[in-house]
Amino acid sequence: MSVIYERVALIGLGLIAGSMARAMRRGGLAKEIVGTSRSAETRETARDIGFCDRVVDTAEDAVIEADLVVLAVPVGAMGGVARRIGPNLMRSATVTDVGSVKRHVIEQVRPFIPQHVHFIPGHPLAGTEQSGPRSGFASLFENRWCLLIPDEGTDPDALRRLRSLWEAMGANVDEMEADHHDLVLAVTSHAPHLIAYTMVGVADDLKRVTDTEVVNYSAAGFRDFTRIAASDPTMWRDVFLANRGATLEVLGRFTEELFALQRAIRTGDGDRLFDYFKRTRAIRRGIIEAGQDTKAPDFGRVDAV
Amino acid sequence: MSVIYERVALIGLGLIAGSMARAMRRGGLAKEIVGTSRSAETRETARDIGFCDRVVDTAEDAVIEADLVVLAVPVGAMGGVARRIGPNLMRSATVTDVGSVKRHVIEQVRPFIPQHVHFIPGHPLAGTEQSGPRSGFASLFENRWCLLIPDEGTDPDALRRLRSLWEAMGANVDEMEADHHDLVLAVTSHAPHLIAYTMVGVADDLKRVTDTEVVNYSAAGFRDFTRIAASDPTMWRDVFLANRGATLEVLGRFTEELFALQRAIRTGDGDRLFDYFKRTRAIRRGIIEAGQDTKAPDFGRVDAV
Repeated sequence: MSVIYERVALIGLGLIAGSMARAMRRGGLAKEIVGTSRSAETRETARDIGFCDRVVDTAEDAVIEADLVVLAVPVGAMGGVARRIGPNLMRSATVTDVGSVKRHVIEQVRPFIPQHVHFIPGHPLAGTEQSGPRSGFASLFENRWCLLIPDEGTDPDALRRLRSLWEAMGANVDEMEADHHDLVLAVTSHAPHLIAYTMVGVADDLKRVTDTEVVNYSAAGFRDFTRIAASDPTMWRDVFLANRGATLEVLGRFTEELFALQRAIRTGDGDRLFDYFKRTRAIRRGIIEAGQDTKAPDFGRVDAV
Repeated sequence: MSVIYERVALIGLGLIAGSMARAMRRGGLAKEIVGTSRSAETRETARDIGFCDRVVDTAEDAVIEADLVVLAVPVGAMGGVARRIGPNLMRSATVTDVGSVKRHVIEQVRPFIPQHVHFIPGHPLAGTEQSGPRSGFASLFENRWCLLIPDEGTDPDALRRLRSLWEAMGANVDEMEADHHDLVLAVTSHAPHLIAYTMVGVADDLKRVTDTEVVNYSAAGFRDFTRIAASDPTMWRDVFLANRGATLEVLGRFTEELFALQRAIRTGDGDRLFDYFKRTRAIRRGIIEAGQDTKAPDFGRVDAV
């Protein structure tokens, strides 16, 4: 319980910012939390819930005298926010972001950050399919990873301080280079999301199968895809456009592989299918051992019955 | 609590048969449950756990004087089992199965079922990524759907009796035509499984991303794919080979759609992406309202933190 920042400005009040506010308050990590959102409705909701000390109307106002500014808006909106807040940033403040793509955000934001301000991009690998100011909760980051993207010019003290904030919110922190981050996330998150969206769209389109059938008989596999495909459309549109190169590269590998398996099905090559399916089990085991998921069957839905 | 069958023979002692045994015992639905498995090790485990009244060494022996015989082996093994048990089936017994594909199973099994025996294929849409005799539990079928596949020659009394067994185990029962079943399941289960297997395989293959990175940073999307891809490889190999036509048709639609979205990413067509992603949310809502999943964010993993 020790204050790490005097005044934290949260730009954007969705799942991530709302969870940060709750986690910082729980840990007494910020003396004051100021929040803002482009949407008047979101600001009103945030005021009602009260997870910020103050909700102000503009990003320009929110950052005044803040020693930490968190950009928590969709990736495509980061540059515009940076342009507006740049002139108001306090000397020696740290600006970070929580976007799912890093190279694009750096390119869009860096030009507007004054010399006397630290810019350290970040990405907490945590979330649910829910969005909006009501969706946050204090434990979202516990035992999840947060990736920070320093470069050769990054101030070590500013980096240490930001790292300690994430650790105090329960996260494991790692550092990564921006392009590598974008490739890793294309594999572990962006391509899987596009694939899930696509499969759910196909099911919706297939006229010979009714929506009721899709809904009722979705017990296995598809049901998990629909959860992924329920995520915030604006956020994901921006992610795919901003991480175009890596996403298309991974999708290219994916379709190549999928065609090979389709061919194995068509030609009845059972051995090839079996070997492929057997190999993927090991990865699942690794994820469970790393504490990034539950060992409970069916995500623990079973215990809930 | 009323006996529906005198003696139930379970051929195969994996997740589904093990759960049926436990559910039937809990409800007092069968006077005696006889089980068998091809594997001596599985039979030994089942004897240790004791979820059957008797475990016998062969399918031929298991079906003797059974009034219900449940084929709960991988889809590719159904025909061989039917050939062996056919001569030993009791007059007026009912044979059913729990395979994920119906047309292929009917073609493989029906020739070996004597005239005086009822054959009513079935498919409980329930399961987890776990397999083997230790993985079953009595509540697996509660509020899940079980599809039965009668035809014009099906005896109404035998059908009613089988339906009442599934209902007594907690399932909702519906009837469906075999080919339509195979198409519906290709959409809601088979294609999603192949896609998940493929994506996990691609992640494992991509040399520039380490396995540790895949494992640690799998918080969103990919983690759900690995659960699906942890399912039993033998079972799934057989499903794809047995439901070749419908699976390839759905995968064809899927790749067509995926190419269109890839193109939208490449050309920067954000509106197209946004509209697509927005549409898929409605399906998710339907599944939650139909009681086929939890409304809790992140499958309720959140509450477990």
